[in-house]
Amino acid sequence: MTPKEEVVAIPVGIRRVAGTIFAPEKAVGTVLFVHGWNSSQAEDLDRARTIASFGYICLTFDLYGHNATSKFHSAATREDNMLDVVAAYEVLEKLKKPVAPGIIGVSYGGYLAALLTSRKPVAWLALRAPALYRDSGWQMPKASFDRADLNAYRRLAIGAKENRALRACSQFEGDVLIVESEFDSMVPSTVTANYRTAFARAASLTFRRIELADHALSKREWQNGYSKLLLNWFEEIVVRNDR
Amino acid sequence: MTPKEEVVAIPVGIRRVAGTIFAPEKAVGTVLFVHGWNSSQAEDLDRARTIASFGYICLTFDLYGHNATSKFHSAATREDNMLDVVAAYEVLEKLKKPVAPGIIGVSYGGYLAALLTSRKPVAWLALRAPALYRDSGWQMPKASFDRADLNAYRRLAIGAKENRALRACSQFEGDVLIVESEFDSMVPSTVTANYRTAFARAASLTFRRIELADHALSKREWQNGYSKLLLNWFEEIVVRNDR
Repeated sequence: MTPKEEVVAIPVGIRRVAGTIFAPEKAVGTVLFVHGWNSSQAEDLDRARTIASFGYICLTFDLYGHNATSKFHSAATREDNMLDVVAAYEVLEKLKKPVAPGIIGVSYGGYLAALLTSRKPVAWLALRAPALYRDSGWQMPKASFDRADLNAYRRLAIGAKENRALRACSQFEGDVLIVESEFDSMVPSTVTANYRTAFARAASLTFRRIELADHALSKREWQNGYSKLLLNWFEEIVVRNDR
Repeated sequence: MTPKEEVVAIPVGIRRVAGTIFAPEKAVGTVLFVHGWNSSQAEDLDRARTIASFGYICLTFDLYGHNATSKFHSAATREDNMLDVVAAYEVLEKLKKPVAPGIIGVSYGGYLAALLTSRKPVAWLALRAPALYRDSGWQMPKASFDRADLNAYRRLAIGAKENRALRACSQFEGDVLIVESEFDSMVPSTVTANYRTAFARAASLTFRRIELADHALSKREWQNGYSKLLLNWFEEIVVRNDR
């Protein structure tokens, strides 16, 4: 049966962010989607519909500084967006207690998802091309980061103790999927290797590479490849665990 | 169609080890099975038959010091058994050129399989509860190792540069499956974490845990769970790559 779709405004302090809830008739679990920088919840809608049809309440939303709030794009900080993610998480938390949501995060959204695990119970993480940033500058506008410095940072082998997102990963005990693009100029394979290495306590770890793909999965076949990987993993690991 | 089975004697210098070749009508690839210490090729026969039915020539064999050569059990060294593995590999190499075999290794056999990748081209590695040993004592009888010292070593976080098997893993660029038993008193999760972390260049990495299981998978359901994981992975990763 097609899940119901409902547009919601999620309060984040005095702000609000736009979200969409996909609610199946009977839910066994919940899933939060966190999109990447310079993207929006639009990238997640199809996958959210599909995953909702497996019996999972899904929530997609637009990070502050994106889509309806894009005029704040140059002002938004990681602190702002982390608050968005926590607020979205709490929407799902209320809809289905006491089940811990799983998180599907892409790029910057994958980074925020990893950080969320140190603040909230998370059942599992599916991270595509998770980004990595220096800890410093947490309250600086994300759009102001020095690109050359960021690129250099992302070529380094970084231990779990040296970065707050990796440290969160090293404590995480749920199931983990990491997907990298073979030719990703934003998030090179050194970054996914850092994430992979950090997840030393994960209940399961699945690392897959989409051949030839770029960061944005700009070709239809790469998008389809990612959807297939994600859904295969979801059925093998999440659906089976929840049965 | 049922694959043909042939018992073979594999020459290893002046010794010979007993092996079994499972040959399907048309082969697309080859697979070498390496059993664990205190086991024999008998543990692999059913899985070899199944994998051969997918179109892979499979070879199982008894490591020196086991089964027909068990009177040399207390004398066999890692050097002896490494020579066995290389000799078995070369049997497959001759049967199907120029395809690099994949290796399925359990415990001590997983350790030897990891080491083999630094000597021979290997397409992929499937390691169940791969064991780890200090580099020293390579030519000492394996049965003489100090168990307490080994147990202590297996509780350590060991970097890829500090151990020759992990170093081989860190150079390996094929697909990797690692399976651990949740309650493994021989190969604790620190060891599988060391392996997992070492495989930083793997094309894909799949880590799975068999819940409640012991090292030997002494219950039928754990054996079945391993077979299912292995075959799922084999179909997803190996069969699809070879199509």
